[in-house]
Amino acid sequence: MYPSSIRNLIECLKDLPGIGEKSAERLAYAVVGFDKDKLDNFANSIISIKENIKKCPICGCITDMDKCYICNDDNRDSSTLFVVEKSKDIILFEKMGTYNGRYHVLDGLISPMDGVNPEDINLSSLVKRVQDDNVREVIVVLKPSIEGETTMQYIKKILSKYNVKVSKIPIGIPMGTDIEYIDTMTLEMAFEDRKDVA
Amino acid sequence: MYPSSIRNLIECLKDLPGIGEKSAERLAYAVVGFDKDKLDNFANSIISIKENIKKCPICGCITDMDKCYICNDDNRDSSTLFVVEKSKDIILFEKMGTYNGRYHVLDGLISPMDGVNPEDINLSSLVKRVQDDNVREVIVVLKPSIEGETTMQYIKKILSKYNVKVSKIPIGIPMGTDIEYIDTMTLEMAFEDRKDVA
Repeated sequence: MYPSSIRNLIECLKDLPGIGEKSAERLAYAVVGFDKDKLDNFANSIISIKENIKKCPICGCITDMDKCYICNDDNRDSSTLFVVEKSKDIILFEKMGTYNGRYHVLDGLISPMDGVNPEDINLSSLVKRVQDDNVREVIVVLKPSIEGETTMQYIKKILSKYNVKVSKIPIGIPMGTDIEYIDTMTLEMAFEDRKDVA
Repeated sequence: MYPSSIRNLIECLKDLPGIGEKSAERLAYAVVGFDKDKLDNFANSIISIKENIKKCPICGCITDMDKCYICNDDNRDSSTLFVVEKSKDIILFEKMGTYNGRYHVLDGLISPMDGVNPEDINLSSLVKRVQDDNVREVIVVLKPSIEGETTMQYIKKILSKYNVKVSKIPIGIPMGTDIEYIDTMTLEMAFEDRKDVA
């Protein structure tokens, strides 16, 4: 029913998160409406990802340079590390604009149920950085979940023999969110993480 | 903040309908997670659209062949034409599975306000088909709107000198839709298009 090049594109688009058959059809026809320059640009941007994107050998985040731009920046404070699950998480903190430390990307969370063990994620280089770079504080920012908690506890354990503080972001209620939309588990944890009103 | 190849891809994705900055970021990072084969496949599907997709010289729908598969099919009934706005509309009727006639794609609607005049859409070849192919009925299926109505009336006018019936799909209420969600204009038009209960 579809020309085969459109059918192929629909299949590719369906591999994207949240894109089903209907959306993929709609997007594919929008692509058909692009002019030749835009089509070249689109195809080239994907080829460029294939050819240029690799992991930063230091922090593990994705980059198109030998080292990522943060690891390459001598003005960043090496004594503080934000440990995150995914490269994309870094963007959120960089948008915040107030953090001048460095990052470490695990590229996964420990999850024995899914066969993900500590050696499957980017942990050995974290220990090496803590040893070599005189890191004073590691702030673990992983999604609140069993996997996140397991990974956080494991990081605390493997770093316990070094002179480094391991901290975390509290579980709590996002700004502007009505409490009625927050699940009980979150409220319980937020209660445990409560702090004095300054 | 983003590697430049990811930034480029985000910009390309933002050109798609309904994709804003946030969605484009999410999709771009999903693309980064594709393996090399999938990236090749994705880029090639876009290049293939650039190189292979053209308009069928007969009906105006997009195709990757010299003639579209419907115009190429001798078993289709040439005496009936569905006139549609976009190539994509054909897919809907083909999914219906009961129509064995042919199509004609206008690739736009007459809209003097937007500077789209009759000569800017695929109308001259419609007249030629009606003349040459012994077409008995033209069913105009355009979206109910001022532009759709204007285009329909124009088609009726230019075909009036030929022995061809020009019909339309009634304005009405879609299956399963509660009447309270239908606007007054639609209800008025549906009332005008009312028919006897069989």
